Amino acid sequence: MSDRSQVDGDRVLADLNALRGIGAYKSGVHKPTFSEPHMRSLEWLVGRLLEAGLVPQIDGIGNVLGTTEKSGPKLLAGSHLESQDFAGWLDGPLGVVYALEAARVINPDPNVNGAVEVAAWCDEEGHFGHFLGSRSYVGALTEADIDAATDRNSGRTMRQALRDVGVAGRPRAVAEPGRHLGYLEAHIEQGETLESGGLKIGVVTSIVGIWQYRITFNGQQNHAGTTRMAARRDAGLALARFCVAIDDRFPESCGPRTVWTTGRITLNPGAPSIIPGSAEMLFQIRDDDPHVIDRLEDLLRSMAVQVGTDGRCTVEVERIRVGSPAIMDETFQHAIVAASGRFADGRCLRMPSGAGHDAQILATIMPAGMLFVPSIGGISHHWSENTADDDIVTGAEVFVEACRYLLPK
Amino acid sequence: MSDRSQVDGDRVLADLNALRGIGAYKSGVHKPTFSEPHMRSLEWLVGRLLEAGLVPQIDGIGNVLGTTEKSGPKLLAGSHLESQDFAGWLDGPLGVVYALEAARVINPDPNVNGAVEVAAWCDEEGHFGHFLGSRSYVGALTEADIDAATDRNSGRTMRQALRDVGVAGRPRAVAEPGRHLGYLEAHIEQGETLESGGLKIGVVTSIVGIWQYRITFNGQQNHAGTTRMAARRDAGLALARFCVAIDDRFPESCGPRTVWTTGRITLNPGAPSIIPGSAEMLFQIRDDDPHVIDRLEDLLRSMAVQVGTDGRCTVEVERIRVGSPAIMDETFQHAIVAASGRFADGRCLRMPSGAGHDAQILATIMPAGMLFVPSIGGISHHWSENTADDDIVTGAEVFVEACRYLLPK
Repeated sequence: MSDRSQVDGDRVLADLNALRGIGAYKSGVHKPTFSEPHMRSLEWLVGRLLEAGLVPQIDGIGNVLGTTEKSGPKLLAGSHLESQDFAGWLDGPLGVVYALEAARVINPDPNVNGAVEVAAWCDEEGHFGHFLGSRSYVGALTEADIDAATDRNSGRTMRQALRDVGVAGRPRAVAEPGRHLGYLEAHIEQGETLESGGLKIGVVTSIVGIWQYRITFNGQQNHAGTTRMAARRDAGLALARFCVAIDDRFPESCGPRTVWTTGRITLNPGAPSIIPGSAEMLFQIRDDDPHVIDRLEDLLRSMAVQVGTDGRCTVEVERIRVGSPAIMDETFQHAIVAASGRFADGRCLRMPSGAGHDAQILATIMPAGMLFVPSIGGISHHWSENTADDDIVTGAEVFVEACRYLLPK
Repeated sequence: MSDRSQVDGDRVLADLNALRGIGAYKSGVHKPTFSEPHMRSLEWLVGRLLEAGLVPQIDGIGNVLGTTEKSGPKLLAGSHLESQDFAGWLDGPLGVVYALEAARVINPDPNVNGAVEVAAWCDEEGHFGHFLGSRSYVGALTEADIDAATDRNSGRTMRQALRDVGVAGRPRAVAEPGRHLGYLEAHIEQGETLESGGLKIGVVTSIVGIWQYRITFNGQQNHAGTTRMAARRDAGLALARFCVAIDDRFPESCGPRTVWTTGRITLNPGAPSIIPGSAEMLFQIRDDDPHVIDRLEDLLRSMAVQVGTDGRCTVEVERIRVGSPAIMDETFQHAIVAASGRFADGRCLRMPSGAGHDAQILATIMPAGMLFVPSIGGISHHWSENTADDDIVTGAEVFVEACRYLLPK
């Protein structure tokens, strides 16, 4: 088909399946950040980087970097290796293995002036925070941020976890100004736009921002048998009414692509015979337009007060994360389109990313680009998440070819 | 005031405060079943039973029994020593200490033919199941029930817990037919009926039944950024709509004293960036009329199907506990009323119990009665739960006097 690219599709699939074998759960994986299978995946990558002639390191925040001493400009490429709980095998590893394959194919090529360097960013999935690894690399993560980070499930502190896995005290790798032309990341789409359009490659134009809120209703904890219905101040019921109000009212004020989600609800104390005295929810909104978010946040706050008052509860709306929408670099978009012309019959589409990715963090200090491959049925963050083998290989071809376009001859 | 009763009010208060000191949390306690402070409380009781001339044992399910070799008829009295999480100091211990005081006052009295025996039933608060201790004593708990029981918070199995605290393998004490005239239990009211009426003693007429349900909505777990709102099957949102529907519709069909509570909600997987694929709630209804429950359960099931269908989720409504309302014995009620006339200026009220108590289990094999003392502000299942010291002492006088009435001269 072409005298360039030279991806070894079988090797790419074998590597991805090797990573799937570490922390396997059904057809997916369970690799929370700093779990044993996560750390084993990082060690696996260190081995592959060495074989590819790169100099590997696992830094003080759990980032893996494979650098080269080859002269010429460098392109940074990667993604992440930890997973959501009981989730898919490609979310993260796909981009890391593509980057590895690009380094294997391109770096030894005497016709390319420059090289690909590989990164696996720690905790993209946000077990301890959000984008802790890539934020550390761009210099946007303080020691105090690390002090404050805890595992959302176990409550283990980030400091303890870093000690447990043996990287505490190591230096944190930080981007060397001017070293990289930019950053390229591949990922599964996690939606059904490509599949439903019969397309093979998504060329990401922007990454939406994520605004996140902790909303807490406080009522009166009491006995579920002896407290008359009329006397209750049930924080859990107020929270349920709030969730329904959001679903009813947000559509009036949202943008065309806004999405919002209540991902976690906790009633306290959470016993069947106790009226919840407090109830907490984690809520997020995603959009690429901060004006839309401003409007929705105003609505959110006013509805919270109304529902709280109606249910004789107090309410606190705390914004715990502020979105940073990111624009992908035009040159990178062109490179992916051109590579798609050569290796995917031009079946590509420019599209925004509704999911957050490390590329949005890297984009704050260097040009960045992203490409997507199709997700079967649009399913993501679930163990059944999948992509056809042929589409994985096509994506690798396009990715490596885009790297060639971006590096000087 | 009288030449009978002879309760030592200071001793009763000192004992209750000693128990408050074990596993103290703010002004209440945190003593989940088989926790270290729970077991220390049982050992404390063993010491007091010995001092009172009773023969103590901790049996194979964690019940404490203090028996006597004194001849004549016996009255069984008690309550429980474990607590809800971070809850009140009197819920349980009050009835145990009253029973202990009754044994101390009455058993040595040569004018009383018979004696009081003391029980602290294990796990009344339902950390592992419901009324496991008293059900064991009345012969209504199988080995398979124990095999199946797990701690609702930690997931620790009952078997493991019994091994951990060192009672596994001991025989389980079972009621000896004909040994007891009946069972008497004192408890805080856990509501505000007595306080708001200026009353000192509640004479329990019946104990409501508790029907409990696990309701699970199943949708599609997916990515919170890439899945369009219209494409979602959000199990958490369906559950919230169901909670609101219950609150809106139950009042049409409930009885005058029906109460219902959603005590726990779990979204799976419970991460901020994942649309919940499943959502579970623990729901209970309390009433003393099974016909009301039948009507409400029909409504519950039909609403669940409707909400599930509207939200494109499937739903499962599983009844995990069937209520057993219990009638308190007339003779016992009379004894408490008569004792109130002597020691509480007659300021007593016959009333049903909205809370479940071990007395409803004992009532299945022997006459049973219960008396309540006032709860300040009606607050219960919370660390701030309290009763005035004077009311505690008055309750003890009435309790011991009622025991005297019930035992033959």
